Amino acid sequence: MSFAHRHLLGIEHLSPSDITAILDLAETYVELNRQPAKRADVLAGLTQINMFFEASTRTQASFELAGKRLGADVMNMAMQASSIKKGETLIDTAMTLNAMHPDLLVVRHPHSGAVDLLAQKVNCAVLNAGDGRHEHPTQALLDALTIRRAKGRLHRLNVAICGDIAHSRVARSNLILLGKMENRIRLIGPPTLVPAHFAEFGAEVHDDMHEGLKDVDVVMMLRLQKERMDGGFIPSEREYYHRYGLDSEKLALAKPDAIVMHPGPMNRGVEIDGTLADDINRSVIQDQVEMGVAVRMAAMELLARNLRGAA
Amino acid sequence: MSFAHRHLLGIEHLSPSDITAILDLAETYVELNRQPAKRADVLAGLTQINMFFEASTRTQASFELAGKRLGADVMNMAMQASSIKKGETLIDTAMTLNAMHPDLLVVRHPHSGAVDLLAQKVNCAVLNAGDGRHEHPTQALLDALTIRRAKGRLHRLNVAICGDIAHSRVARSNLILLGKMENRIRLIGPPTLVPAHFAEFGAEVHDDMHEGLKDVDVVMMLRLQKERMDGGFIPSEREYYHRYGLDSEKLALAKPDAIVMHPGPMNRGVEIDGTLADDINRSVIQDQVEMGVAVRMAAMELLARNLRGAA
Amino acid sequence: MSFAHRHLLGIEHLSPSDITAILDLAETYVELNRQPAKRADVLAGLTQINMFFEASTRTQASFELAGKRLGADVMNMAMQASSIKKGETLIDTAMTLNAMHPDLLVVRHPHSGAVDLLAQKVNCAVLNAGDGRHEHPTQALLDALTIRRAKGRLHRLNVAICGDIAHSRVARSNLILLGKMENRIRLIGPPTLVPAHFAEFGAEVHDDMHEGLKDVDVVMMLRLQKERMDGGFIPSEREYYHRYGLDSEKLALAKPDAIVMHPGPMNRGVEIDGTLADDINRSVIQDQVEMGVAVRMAAMELLARNLRGAA
Repeated sequence: MSFAHRHLLGIEHLSPSDITAILDLAETYVELNRQPAKRADVLAGLTQINMFFEASTRTQASFELAGKRLGADVMNMAMQASSIKKGETLIDTAMTLNAMHPDLLVVRHPHSGAVDLLAQKVNCAVLNAGDGRHEHPTQALLDALTIRRAKGRLHRLNVAICGDIAHSRVARSNLILLGKMENRIRLIGPPTLVPAHFAEFGAEVHDDMHEGLKDVDVVMMLRLQKERMDGGFIPSEREYYHRYGLDSEKLALAKPDAIVMHPGPMNRGVEIDGTLADDINRSVIQDQVEMGVAVRMAAMELLARNLRGAA
Repeated sequence: MSFAHRHLLGIEHLSPSDITAILDLAETYVELNRQPAKRADVLAGLTQINMFFEASTRTQASFELAGKRLGADVMNMAMQASSIKKGETLIDTAMTLNAMHPDLLVVRHPHSGAVDLLAQKVNCAVLNAGDGRHEHPTQALLDALTIRRAKGRLHRLNVAICGDIAHSRVARSNLILLGKMENRIRLIGPPTLVPAHFAEFGAEVHDDMHEGLKDVDVVMMLRLQKERMDGGFIPSEREYYHRYGLDSEKLALAKPDAIVMHPGPMNRGVEIDGTLADDINRSVIQDQVEMGVAVRMAAMELLARNLRGAA
Repeated sequence: MSFAHRHLLGIEHLSPSDITAILDLAETYVELNRQPAKRADVLAGLTQINMFFEASTRTQASFELAGKRLGADVMNMAMQASSIKKGETLIDTAMTLNAMHPDLLVVRHPHSGAVDLLAQKVNCAVLNAGDGRHEHPTQALLDALTIRRAKGRLHRLNVAICGDIAHSRVARSNLILLGKMENRIRLIGPPTLVPAHFAEFGAEVHDDMHEGLKDVDVVMMLRLQKERMDGGFIPSEREYYHRYGLDSEKLALAKPDAIVMHPGPMNRGVEIDGTLADDINRSVIQDQVEMGVAVRMAAMELLARNLRGAA
């Protein structure tokens, strides 16, 4: 099992065997996390810094627990209240933290490409926890692990990604990962929220859920990111739910054993029917959260191994 | 010593022997916390998450130190800045954290009953760190330990609880605990702040401090919670202090060795005279804070033992 | 190596041999922090509480990492959101934390003298992380270590401290430290920002950079603290940079091997030319940050040894 990367910036840089290496190692952490005492020491003595320039309860919590369970010293930086307010640049902030010798830097930033830029300036391993509309690689990896466990494989599946694709780094990273693993992907959403250039990824595009969901194995719903819709078309929630919200009637068009996913936080009654979201026979939404911690533990362990090798 | 509970939601669920079990174990942690190196490993590898939907410096700090000294991985969630803002429900937030496999969830919430509701949805042990006007069980336990250490016993004492009883979960939990341990309780405060239904707990009600404090062993002052007084009567601070504030003149009516308590944070010169609050011959206010860490360590250890048993 | 202090409140209380003791021990931590696994256990079981009444990304992060790498249980208090808002006094807040038995209390406060006052009330070791315009001892110590490593000595150097000296606790602590170690100090800045009483420290005062920088070994730039300038003269940034900003033309007047320092966060193009700040042949700004973690580890270890001795 070789994983030769220095950073985890995007799925675009990973090969199918890199992806498999992360998922395989993550499986061991799924088991560990189900024990009462869940401590490994593979990051003991290492310093992990979480720099979240956008607030995120769940992703930051997931990375924090992942690091602590691996024995790292974890520090959260509240970047909204930081030196950036005193006029310091992103790069100066990063260089300052770099001089404190972190080993792992987990970064979320509202601008696409900001995390890549930062990675060029520091000596440690950088994990992209979401940058603008660009990539959110650990989300795609946790989705992949969830699918692989539910379906028994991660290839030759029909996967529908539905909703606000235009604003979604989750969609983009998933599209790349699922494509690399040779799945067939359909993008379903209103034309304003599914930009034409997404066709480049070789996905089918639909604007009708009834047509797009036909015979899919996996239905991946997205969060309607109103906070990112600057100026353009904002659908009414009611109209949106009617046309693009997932309910059991629309789901009936998918395969009988199709699973339902959502990266959270959910808007119940907007993107998805609340009862369906809670139906443990169809919904794997809680599994996604669980897989998140395991996948982040695996990714950090693999990056840390390379750090030590390089030291 | 048996303590068979899965959660610590309220004093109402505890038997006298449960209360004694927690206090006895807490005594050992009082000693540990006075050492320079204060580390036990009874929670090693366990994950404690503090979810405070209301800000609280002292209670959150107390639980955080309690968990860290027991070796737990402790994570604080700033719930004001959380996904709840993105439209997620309390239960979805709880289910999300639950999927990350915490072992202990410490929750404070402004609504009475919210913590009980949450406890029904998760797999881990839940500790109520204060819910609305309902319960604040660890506060009552730390008060009990403070009284037991100062008075040599926790029964057949005359205890006065004074002030803003209507808005106080501290008063309510103490009333229940002290009642179960067979003490005589007097509630003293202006009629608007001592609702009639509190008589159900078998306490005497007084609206005159001079009458109510006569021969008591313990004087428990409460914080005037202006932030919870929506619409109704708000006394002027000056008038309030004159009638219901504790000073040495009023205290002279109590037993000569009566102790003075306050859960903090204090409004000096409103509920209590500053000099009296600092008088270490009468005031056990700092002891209450010290006992708080010990009682929380004990409660978390007992709950964790049951978790492991159940696993 | 003796270091007999109970607190680290200011450079004014330290002897030259105290300073040397801290720097010598810090050297070992510089080496440790460059390892992949950077863990010492000299603070294992001890509790460190960071109380920052002013936000500070870098100083708080530096103390947090220092404590974690030494094995302490570290807790950050967000004092802006604390009980102080509920009307509690600084001293009550401190007494409350004190009752939780911390061993090390790291305090930043906007008022000069507040940290000294607090130290008189608590049983633990207090480290001043900056109080008003008074002292910032760990900053002066990290600057001293940076100078000693770059210049091979910490005495008989010509050091220029430039800019907003009036509002700077960094300048004040450096002035005291460098004076104790027998260096020659020049203060350079506009007369409104270099108060006459600073002459008491035996420093030369200049208001012309071209004159003041002549033949110096060290150029220490300060941050322009607009947030502290209440009412008085505020220079335009452009005018300020022209007269007092450091660029390579002005630096040419210093010794050819003079080093450039800045405590951060920098205002590029105001106090210092961005290219010069990044020139690793002249600028030791990143080294300062690195030395900061090491110096804080050393100071906390020395204070902790005295705690244990006293217990």
